[in-house]
Amino acid sequence: MSNKIPVGILGATGAVGQNYINLLRDHPWFEVAYVAASPRSAGKKYGEVVANKWLLGANVPGGIADLVIEDANFPDKAKGKCRFVFSALELDSKDEIKALENAYAALGIPVVSNASAHRWTENVPMLIPEINASHLDVIAAQKKAHGWDSGFVVVKPNCSIQSYMIPVYALMKAGYEVKRMFVSTMQAVSGAGYPGVPSLDMIDNVVPFIGGEEEKTEKEPSKIFGTVESGKIVNFDGLKVAAHCNRVPVIDGHTACVSLEFGAKKPSLEEIERIWTSFRGLPQELGLPFAPEVPIIVRHETNRPQPRRDRNEGKGMAVSVGRLRECPLFDVRFVGLSHNTVRGAAGGGILNAELLKAKGFFG
Amino acid sequence: MSNKIPVGILGATGAVGQNYINLLRDHPWFEVAYVAASPRSAGKKYGEVVANKWLLGANVPGGIADLVIEDANFPDKAKGKCRFVFSALELDSKDEIKALENAYAALGIPVVSNASAHRWTENVPMLIPEINASHLDVIAAQKKAHGWDSGFVVVKPNCSIQSYMIPVYALMKAGYEVKRMFVSTMQAVSGAGYPGVPSLDMIDNVVPFIGGEEEKTEKEPSKIFGTVESGKIVNFDGLKVAAHCNRVPVIDGHTACVSLEFGAKKPSLEEIERIWTSFRGLPQELGLPFAPEVPIIVRHETNRPQPRRDRNEGKGMAVSVGRLRECPLFDVRFVGLSHNTVRGAAGGGILNAELLKAKGFFG
Amino acid sequence: MSNKIPVGILGATGAVGQNYINLLRDHPWFEVAYVAASPRSAGKKYGEVVANKWLLGANVPGGIADLVIEDANFPDKAKGKCRFVFSALELDSKDEIKALENAYAALGIPVVSNASAHRWTENVPMLIPEINASHLDVIAAQKKAHGWDSGFVVVKPNCSIQSYMIPVYALMKAGYEVKRMFVSTMQAVSGAGYPGVPSLDMIDNVVPFIGGEEEKTEKEPSKIFGTVESGKIVNFDGLKVAAHCNRVPVIDGHTACVSLEFGAKKPSLEEIERIWTSFRGLPQELGLPFAPEVPIIVRHETNRPQPRRDRNEGKGMAVSVGRLRECPLFDVRFVGLSHNTVRGAAGGGILNAELLKAKGFFG
Amino acid sequence: MSNKIPVGILGATGAVGQNYINLLRDHPWFEVAYVAASPRSAGKKYGEVVANKWLLGANVPGGIADLVIEDANFPDKAKGKCRFVFSALELDSKDEIKALENAYAALGIPVVSNASAHRWTENVPMLIPEINASHLDVIAAQKKAHGWDSGFVVVKPNCSIQSYMIPVYALMKAGYEVKRMFVSTMQAVSGAGYPGVPSLDMIDNVVPFIGGEEEKTEKEPSKIFGTVESGKIVNFDGLKVAAHCNRVPVIDGHTACVSLEFGAKKPSLEEIERIWTSFRGLPQELGLPFAPEVPIIVRHETNRPQPRRDRNEGKGMAVSVGRLRECPLFDVRFVGLSHNTVRGAAGGGILNAELLKAKGFFG
Repeated sequence: MSNKIPVGILGATGAVGQNYINLLRDHPWFEVAYVAASPRSAGKKYGEVVANKWLLGANVPGGIADLVIEDANFPDKAKGKCRFVFSALELDSKDEIKALENAYAALGIPVVSNASAHRWTENVPMLIPEINASHLDVIAAQKKAHGWDSGFVVVKPNCSIQSYMIPVYALMKAGYEVKRMFVSTMQAVSGAGYPGVPSLDMIDNVVPFIGGEEEKTEKEPSKIFGTVESGKIVNFDGLKVAAHCNRVPVIDGHTACVSLEFGAKKPSLEEIERIWTSFRGLPQELGLPFAPEVPIIVRHETNRPQPRRDRNEGKGMAVSVGRLRECPLFDVRFVGLSHNTVRGAAGGGILNAELLKAKGFFG
Repeated sequence: MSNKIPVGILGATGAVGQNYINLLRDHPWFEVAYVAASPRSAGKKYGEVVANKWLLGANVPGGIADLVIEDANFPDKAKGKCRFVFSALELDSKDEIKALENAYAALGIPVVSNASAHRWTENVPMLIPEINASHLDVIAAQKKAHGWDSGFVVVKPNCSIQSYMIPVYALMKAGYEVKRMFVSTMQAVSGAGYPGVPSLDMIDNVVPFIGGEEEKTEKEPSKIFGTVESGKIVNFDGLKVAAHCNRVPVIDGHTACVSLEFGAKKPSLEEIERIWTSFRGLPQELGLPFAPEVPIIVRHETNRPQPRRDRNEGKGMAVSVGRLRECPLFDVRFVGLSHNTVRGAAGGGILNAELLKAKGFFG
Repeated sequence: MSNKIPVGILGATGAVGQNYINLLRDHPWFEVAYVAASPRSAGKKYGEVVANKWLLGANVPGGIADLVIEDANFPDKAKGKCRFVFSALELDSKDEIKALENAYAALGIPVVSNASAHRWTENVPMLIPEINASHLDVIAAQKKAHGWDSGFVVVKPNCSIQSYMIPVYALMKAGYEVKRMFVSTMQAVSGAGYPGVPSLDMIDNVVPFIGGEEEKTEKEPSKIFGTVESGKIVNFDGLKVAAHCNRVPVIDGHTACVSLEFGAKKPSLEEIERIWTSFRGLPQELGLPFAPEVPIIVRHETNRPQPRRDRNEGKGMAVSVGRLRECPLFDVRFVGLSHNTVRGAAGGGILNAELLKAKGFFG
Repeated sequence: MSNKIPVGILGATGAVGQNYINLLRDHPWFEVAYVAASPRSAGKKYGEVVANKWLLGANVPGGIADLVIEDANFPDKAKGKCRFVFSALELDSKDEIKALENAYAALGIPVVSNASAHRWTENVPMLIPEINASHLDVIAAQKKAHGWDSGFVVVKPNCSIQSYMIPVYALMKAGYEVKRMFVSTMQAVSGAGYPGVPSLDMIDNVVPFIGGEEEKTEKEPSKIFGTVESGKIVNFDGLKVAAHCNRVPVIDGHTACVSLEFGAKKPSLEEIERIWTSFRGLPQELGLPFAPEVPIIVRHETNRPQPRRDRNEGKGMAVSVGRLRECPLFDVRFVGLSHNTVRGAAGGGILNAELLKAKGFFG
């Protein structure tokens, strides 16, 4: 029998759930032992339910196809079958998701969530492990507030901001304040799940709007760059962001055009490149399985990064940046790119879980 | 026999040339009487040369298919066959294009050019007729400087800026200074001509770079908003622009995400919408055939304008704007859209010619 | 007040319904006076309901935007408001659609249907007016069987077969039996309605399957080429068809690769081209407004017809054929193309209605 | 120092050449030691030449970027630097390619070619190793005819036929004659190289024509299924093929709709599936590194295989088939899919080289 940690996936048949199952093939630490979804799928074999809607290449991993799906609305059923769960729940309201994720935590089952419901709960960390692993400190307060024993909830931020948050953080960590940031994104259709964006909207077209995305893009950095104080995360208010979010006919990979304005101390382009190239975070130090060796890849071609050609760098976990140059209005500008369903969704969730495991949060 | 003005097209077999021929079908004032291209095509019938590379729907207009192509390098051949020429020349260097366009002008054949060669010649107007029809005043000085009689050269600006220049101008004309402008474009592949952008670069991809485009985008507004003084155009230095230019998998229609910072006097969103909706320029007053009745169309849907759905407004000559809202960093932001091969290329050239005709420049 | 015939549209807010409304702008005979849809939309203004899901360019035609939507499930409401209805109903079952279409007919309101429900009802004609206008003779029997007075139902066939049925019929009419036909289609996404095909299935992909399409493609020609006998349509069994149907990333326009095997009498390629070029049907003779002047357009380029470049021929009502050549296995082969949402859907329905009007079926 | 066999690549900077370099990363037997291209690139470092036109993900493999490109027109330069060459030459005429490939062979350097020039040379084998490894027997005669010592030439067939040739062969090998075959392909743009197909031809479009492709598709099977007799390959004339070849907006992966007519002995669908599933060829028996473990993958979903989801099966070397069903005109039909730049080009070439190595042809 395997010595791996058994994990569960809530919302296992959806697009994000499928990505978790795909990425966890052969994971050195975790193994999918439990799949839960809506009552509609409960009681059926996973392989049969996704047969004609498996979104990824190849097949459902062998062992998983035969797992019987449980009803995600009954946390009790997961008890004893998995050490923690990845949540890719898609319910009608954020309140329902919050309540259900809490119910799992209350039963002693930690929840590593992709859902946005708990992002603004002040004692729930919103993690990008290279940036704010220190936010794990708030978990103790979260457990205490709820009277939970081993259970807790952590979340990850929106996929749209992943292509520049680590690069911006690297500059801040090196001592350069970033005060204002313009962002214009060109986001992949996989970010909307399945069926998601109709092809009638995406062939020979772009849609200059994604519901709720600009608000998240402008607001989430303040929590990610925040600090843990008195059992909650206090937001950082030193960075202002304006975002234009667009949907483009790309399968995977969100691209962002970014202009940065620094505080009084301004790095040269060479200094920025040096900082980015040498940046390493805690996941790299800990050698986490999903940590990209080089988290920020700097490209020098005139026309890169491009989503199809660069999204898979670092197995989809690295951020690619290019076209670093001066900005006529702010100080510098560049193009950032990250894989939205790997780093920006399931892969990011797995990295969060790896960090939790390495830090002893799974007992 | 027709009473229409006979016109010539230089570079008639290329993508822009084909668009001129397509758009001039049934033009009430002009009729294509002369087509010129490279020596390779000279002596052949137009219909035969473009047979397997006609880029547009339907067929080559009947009368044109039988025209014999002349060598564009010999302006003499055009003499007596057309009152003026549209230039869509594609030569190896800008200097060659300048010299050749000048040669036509010297022979008394006005040149209405799409080429970028003469854009920074200080006595050549770079026209968007709704904005700077007054720049026609510089033509007299241009003729005098060269000793030309009836010939002269006018140009149009780059296609990438057409989706917001008229809206910005409308605000300036209404008394609101625009001081700084962030622009991020998503540009159609037709902007690169034919064969242009390889499909291997555009399926499941975007390319965050277009050679020379950001420079043009940032610089051309200064001339367009300039004033004629002492026989030349003096650039306007009151507006600073930063541009990120991207190529996306769209056939026609350039989309721009724009953020504006005003001077001391700032309009409300309602005021902006009122200004845009009621804006009319000289082409509208003169009732020019290619002038869109409503030059700025304001959309209220959450997710428009979109290139495939809105590019053909005003027969491709109107600008569509939408998503007008406040900007967290500057004052306001919006999305602009224009048809790059109609308003941004051949259609824009035709409107320039109509303006010249209405103002008596063709004698 | 207008002298036009007032018409109703059932399922007016869906993709096909929107196309009817778009194509009927400025129709010389008909004017949309009544719109009906699901109970969800009933009572609201048409313009408001489709505001963020208007699929076509430009805007909802002015007069229509203000029409209040009625519940399509109550035929009584249509009484007195329209002379006949176009049915683009999308209900859960074909039986429901049949029953509802019959209910309109029973009230004296003829139904010109796009739905597939009644295609195999033996006294309901399945019309392509250039081919089988003679099937209108069965309407008398239909009325009699139901005891209907002025109401009746006619349908049109599936969009996938429109790109070659008229060309095949033209050959049969000229005396050449077509015995066997291989067809492989590449069909546009608009054929699946909205939201229809997810973009995750269509970017960098084709889907070699469309539910029910191959069966329809293989079976419908037998009724279309049938004859009216004793008050019903007797199918023609002289042509066998094998079809492979594929979905490709194209907005509009179904393309078909076709190989034909003739009976003993075989036309030459020149003879086929002559037949196609000169073919005219009853709609052309009657000068119906939506009848394309030339129903079959023969192209000679090596690489045409192509959906984006040729679908709009004859305002979307003509069929384009090209690449006519010998087939190593059967006799000849060619590529056919037709616009699936115009000729293949709403435009085809309008042509059917025009034929009915011209033949006096609307009283 | 490495014990791997040093290999050269002719035409190393083109699309196929780049694929060879990409696929040979970490090959267990071969290592790229020599790169040659046109005089234009000669003398420059490989990494510099392809910097802005590297078509694949990630980067040029480290060691290769620093190789200095030689002029492919001078075979002498390759002497002593590589044991054999992969030819991806793109010259103006087939005769030039033949002559140059022969020149390498004459110098004792075997040529494993992707070019089509030698496909119809009767003593040059056109290999699909699972089918006709026995054709290697003709090499002795080839050498003798030219008086060559260790050099020789082998080729591979066109990419368009790879998605069904192994499945058809498996049936023939199992005793079922296939007499007639209809094929309609939907081919990826990468098959046309780079820049290849313009995006203006591929967005919202298909092109129902690929120059020369139908002829190759119909003719090449006869040689592949041929037999070696008296020092040459005698073509098989028992199978007749009709092909419609189309270009669709897909990056990689050719899809084919296929209908088969058997001889007197006809397999059931179950029998066909059994044959396909259990089929193994010589590459599988020999355990060649690029041989897919399962060469024919049978899919049971209603809508597969699809190019984006299935092309990478068996690392791009397996063929996927699906939708096996009866054909109303012939006997059975199915959809086949293979990766055109892996199995259909560079990967196929590598498998050929592995077979040659395993059979002792490289000394």
